[in-house]
Amino acid sequence: MRQHSHSKQNNRPLSGVIVLDLTRATGGPYGSMMLADLGAEVIKIETPELARGVSSRVVYDPDYAIAGEDAHFLALNRNKKSIVLDLQTAAGREVFYDLTRKADVVFDNFRAGVMKRLGADYETLSKVNPGIICCSVTGFGSSGPHCDRPAFDIVVQAVSGMMSMIDKRDPSGRPVWSRVAIADQVGGMFAAYGIVAALYGRERTGKGRQVDIALQDSMIALLMEYGLYPLNCGFFRDPVASLLWGAFKAKDKHIIICAHREGFWGNLCRALGHEEWTTDPKFNPLSRRMDNKDEIWSLIEGVLGSRSAAEWMEVLTVADVPCALVNSIAEALADPQTTHREMVVEVKSPSGVPVKLLGNPVKISDNHEVFELPPALGQHTGEVLRDLLGYPEEKIRRLRQDKVV
Amino acid sequence: MRQHSHSKQNNRPLSGVIVLDLTRATGGPYGSMMLADLGAEVIKIETPELARGVSSRVVYDPDYAIAGEDAHFLALNRNKKSIVLDLQTAAGREVFYDLTRKADVVFDNFRAGVMKRLGADYETLSKVNPGIICCSVTGFGSSGPHCDRPAFDIVVQAVSGMMSMIDKRDPSGRPVWSRVAIADQVGGMFAAYGIVAALYGRERTGKGRQVDIALQDSMIALLMEYGLYPLNCGFFRDPVASLLWGAFKAKDKHIIICAHREGFWGNLCRALGHEEWTTDPKFNPLSRRMDNKDEIWSLIEGVLGSRSAAEWMEVLTVADVPCALVNSIAEALADPQTTHREMVVEVKSPSGVPVKLLGNPVKISDNHEVFELPPALGQHTGEVLRDLLGYPEEKIRRLRQDKVV
Repeated sequence: MRQHSHSKQNNRPLSGVIVLDLTRATGGPYGSMMLADLGAEVIKIETPELARGVSSRVVYDPDYAIAGEDAHFLALNRNKKSIVLDLQTAAGREVFYDLTRKADVVFDNFRAGVMKRLGADYETLSKVNPGIICCSVTGFGSSGPHCDRPAFDIVVQAVSGMMSMIDKRDPSGRPVWSRVAIADQVGGMFAAYGIVAALYGRERTGKGRQVDIALQDSMIALLMEYGLYPLNCGFFRDPVASLLWGAFKAKDKHIIICAHREGFWGNLCRALGHEEWTTDPKFNPLSRRMDNKDEIWSLIEGVLGSRSAAEWMEVLTVADVPCALVNSIAEALADPQTTHREMVVEVKSPSGVPVKLLGNPVKISDNHEVFELPPALGQHTGEVLRDLLGYPEEKIRRLRQDKVV
Repeated sequence: MRQHSHSKQNNRPLSGVIVLDLTRATGGPYGSMMLADLGAEVIKIETPELARGVSSRVVYDPDYAIAGEDAHFLALNRNKKSIVLDLQTAAGREVFYDLTRKADVVFDNFRAGVMKRLGADYETLSKVNPGIICCSVTGFGSSGPHCDRPAFDIVVQAVSGMMSMIDKRDPSGRPVWSRVAIADQVGGMFAAYGIVAALYGRERTGKGRQVDIALQDSMIALLMEYGLYPLNCGFFRDPVASLLWGAFKAKDKHIIICAHREGFWGNLCRALGHEEWTTDPKFNPLSRRMDNKDEIWSLIEGVLGSRSAAEWMEVLTVADVPCALVNSIAEALADPQTTHREMVVEVKSPSGVPVKLLGNPVKISDNHEVFELPPALGQHTGEVLRDLLGYPEEKIRRLRQDKVV
């Protein structure tokens, strides 16, 4: 752990934690960004292969670029440092082991087995530094019958059953999924959580740990009671859909309403001008509403059809009925609550162009948030070798000459 | 922090951490279960109101029950303790403050303002215990123009723009969402992460912190580059959908294939018996495939139509093309990799009935995993008052008599 000079930056939750970040693509970089957002020093270790192009730094289409950067990379790599290091050479590995001695965490999302081939698996690294915490994120886990399979987000959404949980009505039978990389990012989140829990545990024992996160496990964990039905009852059911919970058609478009609880049900009836529904034995108690769901649903839509979704939003919000319009992303980000929560932040690029990023959702006191754009490739190579490892200039020059760094 | 007797249980990442868990419904209990799964002592504090019914303990429909328990509650509350405590009485608050003196974390997901009314906000509790970490999960945050609005999972999926990211083709315009409570659970995950980061930070400073998690922020954070386009370019685009990434129709049903990268594209062409596509100038380089996406897509489906999705799974897996069938939840949980990863665990209920639960996705060395069914309401009231607080039997008897506990 790095000793900081005294300043506010000293006091962030993860100040002083050094993370060697070998992750690429989505889930891993998301997890390491979470660590960086709470003050950890995250050093991306990029290989010459990445510099040559097999990287999410690559801008495939200039139209996708924001201030010359790939938008995906930009979204996932703020507040990090970058060094270039060739782990496939013996000299590069020596530099990596020197880094491991100074670091707290090594974080990768290679396919299972790659870290071992690079001489950078937990068994090896824990001999170099017994306190090191190694976290790997893989599609299916570090071992098991499918551990070698390549996995991308939608593969995992499909395999895990998550895709089957999209409440679709597409008559073609075409599967439907979230374009947001839920599996990748939830996997990265479990990884960041496991890493910090291991850091906390190490305070008592001094010993590092291995954290092994699979995207498939991550999605399965989120299935909750939907997973328990087939396991325990041999059937699947959908408790939520049987209540007053969903998308109701207003005059112009759908509005989301949740009136599954007694209090909200009463609020909804009154807001729609039908207090008598709250005492109608056809719809009370709850079990009767479940029996007559279709009837009450069409009565509700009959009333909603008289006004626009936006008008009903006003009425239902005042009546304390949980409700929502289905926002586009642009609408969501322009929402006054989003602004109030600082979920959009502006950063200046080196050339002075303002770039907007999404904020940090982990609002934590005394975190002294900072936002810096992703580093240029190898931007911090000299700084890290000099300041963190204390290498003399001559050694750094030789490593550069030999293209190790 | 509780001192444990020496045992393996001592050595779990969060051993000794005491969490006062006021959460209910989904997101909060999911977050506190994550803490319990890594060894924290999570004490659910349930109120007499909850005992009377306004609780996710309630089994609305006996068909939903598993071993007599509500499946939703069962899925979210393993490995916890339960005490009943009336926070609306002065005597109950005194007990709560005594608990706060012994605890590390207070975790709630009431609507904004409720904890203050209960005298249990961070400002008050940090005077009782300056090291206390208070985490609140709300729909929209602790302040701001919409902070008072009630929020359930689909409300947040809608407001945040997440629902707009479901790649739907429903011609009716009916919005489509994930029945899995992504917003709730991702919010709970950020909360657990923030809590553990605060615990780690406290090791250096001794000071607690306040963690303020909003479900809406949590969903916005996951939007990644999809959020950056409208913010920086004034337009929305879908980079992934423009590549060979999605659901392709085989003879019987769809199969998910990802061939967006050069290597996988070559593997796919060879697996389909069309190596010549890899050199066809119409489809190479990548930018040409993007131009002619529809043509290559229908060529691929033309070949896939000759065999079933299951047959193609075999062929494509051998060829190292990322691919998947769209599993039901039952299929996902029966997958041999799921078994290998211990993502299904079996626990015995007090009456001896075996109950299956989903496993812990945070696989971490020396965690000595245990799985215990959720506690009965108030099961640990006596134990906690006696062992943790050291209350004499007479005092406990009086508190019971006065219905404070």
